[in-house]
Amino acid sequence: MGEFLILKSGDEAREILTSFAALATESVALDHAFDRVLGEDLLALEDTPPWPRSVMDGYAVRARDVQGASESVPCYLKLVGTVPMGAVLERRIGPGEAAGISTGGVLPEGADAVVMIEYVDRARAEEIEVHRSVAAGDNLIRPGEDLRRGDMVVPRGKRLRPQDVGALAAFGRTEVRVFRRPRVAVLSTGNEVVPPDKAPAPGQVRDVNQYALSAQVRRAGGEPLLGGIVADDAAALRARVLELLDESDMVMLSGGSSVGVRDVASEVLASLGGSVLFHGINVRPGKPTLCARVGDKPVLGMPGFPVSSMVIFDVFVRPLLWRLSGESARDPWPARRRARFSRRHASAAGREDWVRVRLESRADGAWAAPVLGGSAALSTVVRADGLVRIDAGSEGIGEGEEIEVFLYE
Amino acid sequence: MGEFLILKSGDEAREILTSFAALATESVALDHAFDRVLGEDLLALEDTPPWPRSVMDGYAVRARDVQGASESVPCYLKLVGTVPMGAVLERRIGPGEAAGISTGGVLPEGADAVVMIEYVDRARAEEIEVHRSVAAGDNLIRPGEDLRRGDMVVPRGKRLRPQDVGALAAFGRTEVRVFRRPRVAVLSTGNEVVPPDKAPAPGQVRDVNQYALSAQVRRAGGEPLLGGIVADDAAALRARVLELLDESDMVMLSGGSSVGVRDVASEVLASLGGSVLFHGINVRPGKPTLCARVGDKPVLGMPGFPVSSMVIFDVFVRPLLWRLSGESARDPWPARRRARFSRRHASAAGREDWVRVRLESRADGAWAAPVLGGSAALSTVVRADGLVRIDAGSEGIGEGEEIEVFLYE
Repeated sequence: MGEFLILKSGDEAREILTSFAALATESVALDHAFDRVLGEDLLALEDTPPWPRSVMDGYAVRARDVQGASESVPCYLKLVGTVPMGAVLERRIGPGEAAGISTGGVLPEGADAVVMIEYVDRARAEEIEVHRSVAAGDNLIRPGEDLRRGDMVVPRGKRLRPQDVGALAAFGRTEVRVFRRPRVAVLSTGNEVVPPDKAPAPGQVRDVNQYALSAQVRRAGGEPLLGGIVADDAAALRARVLELLDESDMVMLSGGSSVGVRDVASEVLASLGGSVLFHGINVRPGKPTLCARVGDKPVLGMPGFPVSSMVIFDVFVRPLLWRLSGESARDPWPARRRARFSRRHASAAGREDWVRVRLESRADGAWAAPVLGGSAALSTVVRADGLVRIDAGSEGIGEGEEIEVFLYE
Repeated sequence: MGEFLILKSGDEAREILTSFAALATESVALDHAFDRVLGEDLLALEDTPPWPRSVMDGYAVRARDVQGASESVPCYLKLVGTVPMGAVLERRIGPGEAAGISTGGVLPEGADAVVMIEYVDRARAEEIEVHRSVAAGDNLIRPGEDLRRGDMVVPRGKRLRPQDVGALAAFGRTEVRVFRRPRVAVLSTGNEVVPPDKAPAPGQVRDVNQYALSAQVRRAGGEPLLGGIVADDAAALRARVLELLDESDMVMLSGGSSVGVRDVASEVLASLGGSVLFHGINVRPGKPTLCARVGDKPVLGMPGFPVSSMVIFDVFVRPLLWRLSGESARDPWPARRRARFSRRHASAAGREDWVRVRLESRADGAWAAPVLGGSAALSTVVRADGLVRIDAGSEGIGEGEEIEVFLYE
């Protein structure tokens, strides 16, 4: 029973995991910047747009020339040219003059507004009839109206969305500094584990965790490295972990959910000069989770059941990967739904529970039904739409209680 | 004014886009299956687990032998061995006998339950002292309890999550059929557009859309193909579109937001034997969106302003890509939040509006503030946290009205 004494709470484990630092930055080309974490502040390098541009198809005019124009009392202006796209009109618009302009065209000097094409008739070859007055600045975007030189556009530590990549392009940033993607080795352990292409003999089981965890690493923005399977042998495990630490930024040992195997793992980590930061957390599922630091790299001993391993990844390891990735602030569960809990669920006080649920749409709204079956049943997580958290301070959720479901995406 | 007559509504455009069919399927290796769309039904190939397994570390026993056991009145059993991991105990558990077993171990014949290690003391080398009674089946997972042979595990058309990849591994599926990822060419058009590495001369503008749209394609599960920039020249555009159609499953023309350029695009598409499905939609931003079919491939004329182009992609093109990807049912906006709208926003009746908003957390809850600035200002979408939809039937949103924000992720 001794091990219960050293269990860390979920919050303690989270706090410990914040002690790891972001990886170094590197330079990538613009077309590889999407979904990377920005390693520098992106400031506006120039006023945007640098000149007044039309935001409509129409005619560049002097607003005072069309004051009072209407359907019944149009104004007539002399058409002196058309603004070429990609260049400027080599002529000033004088009193009583106008020039054709397309969306995005540069407003010619002398003009101060654009009349939309819908409110103009071509009276003659060199004359237009304007049916609507405009104010100075109408249908334009002014220099610096989008962004002023020096404005913060995207801060360091933000994962680049498509629009952020667009902003890089707009400022001619064909190379950009981003944090390195964490390279995460996943190593399955256990005498009973066989690769998926082998038919398991009685007592053997196919390796699920290596593939599920690798997919989770990829979803969290890391690069998985399939580390293979090692038997429960301290020397073999030590040798393989050493190799993998050399090739990666973080190692996840999967399996070894039995006490003996976990002891081997923590001995091995100690022998590598690592310090065990926690070994056992008061969380269900996933109690036997282990975290060590070897050099400056995290080594995680994940619980053996695929379900527990996947939950622990989402709840604890994913935020760690975001941290290594340099991501400074991030909503861990952007996709979530309020729902009512369909069935009383008890939880031990002091323990943080994560319950797999299915969402059901009923006449009276959304309900979250716990998926029946223990952590040993992979189907529980395949059938689930998401997770519900029961805080350590709570003793469970009552039937009909309103809760928040964190969706799997 | 003629063009307004042929505007399709947003709903009509959505309906038209459902006329495109999913791409073919292909076979990929298990470690490339994550985030692909399953092209076959994954059924359980065998009962899972195939044999009864312990879900705890402890001792395999016959439940009737420990009936009534307690702290004060323990039962004594003869320890006849330990179940080896990855194999079976070559011995039957007889009356009064027990065997050590680890989590995941196969229950030996004769035994029908597992007592947790916490409730057992090793009395002597070959004897254990059991302090808790168990019922038959306790601390076990029975054959088929997780999945029964023939159960639907993951249906065709589902995008594979990490747990679904785990299920493939569990059934030894080292190869799996998935839909091809749509390959989407993005071609920028316009005499004024220069590549991001060039300093724009007056009137020129750096190509933003190609990079932003490519990132959106990738986020939607497609493979972007940077198609370069062509000038507003019908022959050049025709030649380049033909080339790109050959290399891709879909082409997006970006730019050409002016009427003249759009007319060129639709003439070019007609000359390729394509039919224009719509040309102009009653949606803001993004009215000048064009959709054609050339052969069985969609060709989209995207609006020229980066903001409009990005909104139209998220609202209309992304679901089209999911469709090409074979994805059968998908929540288009899994990440959303209820909030109150901070500022009255009028919308023309009959027009569907998508308003860029920032989320603000105030003492009285979440508020969504429209980002000021027109579609010509890229900063409006860079600063936004998400979009709010104003339906065609509505004339706007009032101050303080509760709405749903669809989050950018």
